[in-house]
Amino acid sequence: MNMTEKAAALLTEVRSRSPLIHNITNYVTVNDCANVTLAIGASPIMADDEKETADITAISSALVLNIGTLNHRTIESMILAGEKANECGIPVVLDPVGAGASLLRNDTVRELTRQIRFSVIRGNLSELSYVAGLPSSTKGVDSSDRDTGNDAAQAAREAAARLGCTAALTGAVDVITDGTELVKIHNGHPMLSRVTGTGCMTTALVGAFLGAGGDPFTAAASGVAAMGIAGELAFREAGEKGTGSFHMAVIDALSRLDEKTVKEMARFEETGN
Amino acid sequence: MNMTEKAAALLTEVRSRSPLIHNITNYVTVNDCANVTLAIGASPIMADDEKETADITAISSALVLNIGTLNHRTIESMILAGEKANECGIPVVLDPVGAGASLLRNDTVRELTRQIRFSVIRGNLSELSYVAGLPSSTKGVDSSDRDTGNDAAQAAREAAARLGCTAALTGAVDVITDGTELVKIHNGHPMLSRVTGTGCMTTALVGAFLGAGGDPFTAAASGVAAMGIAGELAFREAGEKGTGSFHMAVIDALSRLDEKTVKEMARFEETGN
Amino acid sequence: MNMTEKAAALLTEVRSRSPLIHNITNYVTVNDCANVTLAIGASPIMADDEKETADITAISSALVLNIGTLNHRTIESMILAGEKANECGIPVVLDPVGAGASLLRNDTVRELTRQIRFSVIRGNLSELSYVAGLPSSTKGVDSSDRDTGNDAAQAAREAAARLGCTAALTGAVDVITDGTELVKIHNGHPMLSRVTGTGCMTTALVGAFLGAGGDPFTAAASGVAAMGIAGELAFREAGEKGTGSFHMAVIDALSRLDEKTVKEMARFEETGN
Repeated sequence: MNMTEKAAALLTEVRSRSPLIHNITNYVTVNDCANVTLAIGASPIMADDEKETADITAISSALVLNIGTLNHRTIESMILAGEKANECGIPVVLDPVGAGASLLRNDTVRELTRQIRFSVIRGNLSELSYVAGLPSSTKGVDSSDRDTGNDAAQAAREAAARLGCTAALTGAVDVITDGTELVKIHNGHPMLSRVTGTGCMTTALVGAFLGAGGDPFTAAASGVAAMGIAGELAFREAGEKGTGSFHMAVIDALSRLDEKTVKEMARFEETGN
Repeated sequence: MNMTEKAAALLTEVRSRSPLIHNITNYVTVNDCANVTLAIGASPIMADDEKETADITAISSALVLNIGTLNHRTIESMILAGEKANECGIPVVLDPVGAGASLLRNDTVRELTRQIRFSVIRGNLSELSYVAGLPSSTKGVDSSDRDTGNDAAQAAREAAARLGCTAALTGAVDVITDGTELVKIHNGHPMLSRVTGTGCMTTALVGAFLGAGGDPFTAAASGVAAMGIAGELAFREAGEKGTGSFHMAVIDALSRLDEKTVKEMARFEETGN
Repeated sequence: MNMTEKAAALLTEVRSRSPLIHNITNYVTVNDCANVTLAIGASPIMADDEKETADITAISSALVLNIGTLNHRTIESMILAGEKANECGIPVVLDPVGAGASLLRNDTVRELTRQIRFSVIRGNLSELSYVAGLPSSTKGVDSSDRDTGNDAAQAAREAAARLGCTAALTGAVDVITDGTELVKIHNGHPMLSRVTGTGCMTTALVGAFLGAGGDPFTAAASGVAAMGIAGELAFREAGEKGTGSFHMAVIDALSRLDEKTVKEMARFEETGN
């Protein structure tokens, strides 16, 4: 199967299994993360107290760690949850929001990646450049990196190599690589960068695809493509109205997404590495 | 008056009194809880620091405690607020989100119900089964329990008896009982379970109806029916678009809800106990 | 230039500079604050851990402090961020949500205004009356003060004098004064008070206009007028649907706002002081 067929099949798995996904995430975009998890067919649970995160992870099918509004309490909770996930063989995805923007974020990313084995890391060019040890600049957490995908491919490869996991770098062109294979995704719409949290939501979707049993490379590609396709459909539906209606239309599109739409709209470019 | 007439009259009370409702709730669905409180005609205030919760409760007409994203800080705040509410004769409603899913949640529910007298507890089948001491299984916090209402009636009765309060169990068929009377509600739409927080929002609505002076049984039935009716109206309006638009349409419908709509659409089945 | 021309020009500055705005705000309305910041053309970053707030402030063009759901951890973070902003010459706006409603809020407002020099304070009549040392009553945090603007002008003048900054008092008629000049704004729609956080969002907009280099008086007037105009446009678009759709339409209108619309719709009354 090519990636389009794999992504379409995995979407159906999400909808039929409805995996429970544990999210420890930021309070800015958490409602959207829960709603896109439901929209794609999975079941979200948000819990971040250190006394319960391991318990909740243990009954979940995937764990999503997002450092968007990290603090000392939730950092500890993320580590406990991640260790439990590793112990139980539950896949973990990391969203290093704003990595590079503060010492605390940098230290936290280093600590998390040292103590936890991730299946996927999902970020934008500046975030994954930081993780990869390349020069990066962070301007906010909703930055849209406009490039041809070449810098992105390098940063994604380096990040994947450093962490020994799949790296999903989202931008004008998305790049997914597990260090061996690499796929570029030509879906999406610039308006996605005018709604906060579309990156976080993409990471949540990757968590849903992981929780349905997808291998990390396919799950990452499926989640990123799903958001890109939803952005295109939402722009058609509500782009002229403005970013509030577009935001809801993105969730609408995810909730209606099916195999047929994925097969018609996904634009994967499978290039090898 | 039958329950339909009581619920319609109480809605008008909410809109004319605009009671202040103190919510200590989770950060996933808090914005929706505030917005449905406003939509139904009440005035929300969210405050969770232990140094001010009692002050805020003291000026409010009802208190809503929701353990969706509990932590040691907010648990203490909930207890202080609940004790103040009991002292002042202010009604309190509990939403035991995810009860049964972790030791921390179970311990917290036990602690809260030991130290605070609740007027209403609102949960789904697995949550109220846990509270009632019956076998339960939790799969996420947005679980939709599909049953005929028989198990639900038993769990609601047991929970009401244990806590000495009204129990409101929401599912395909909702069951409200104060231990003496019991009413089933045949409103709602399955799409409500595809939006996060419709349970939390229902609890917030019950708080608004309590704050307007409703007795616990009527307030619980009114809040649950309001959400069910809003779900039906929202599905007509936006069901085909998807869950994002449906979500907004639920709030739209609550903001337009009036006595006439309640009288036309409420489907209460008053069965005695 | 009159205020309409200044506000229109400053809007274009926001859209062309896309300033990074650091918000330490409440978890009820934070998603909306981020989305209106993006809608108006700026770039939001939300970070509230005391170990990173100063770092984040230092790379930002303005700082927004909102005490809507304050707690001891975030109060400390606000002070650290505010001090860094003062040190670096970065403008700071304060939203004293619920000032007057609890001892903690009152103490916090006193502490913040003692330790930090603000460029703008934005609140409703009861909040700014508290800040001004005038009699006030708080009923919730979404109170809409219905008055002719006379009490408002007095409270705004006193608050501006006490803090030595621009005071922006929003209500049926908005009043902005820096102690020397005063402008009233006759935009807005009552439905704005039926959506939670329109006050917080207005403060976030003021932060965006400050971050684009606006002087405090112009930035405050521009932010308040932008929300008022958006409310009017949103009511035309979605007022009949209900408060959920109206909420999204407010964000839609902000995302489409341009110089032409500001010039056509802004209703500033420049009265001198």
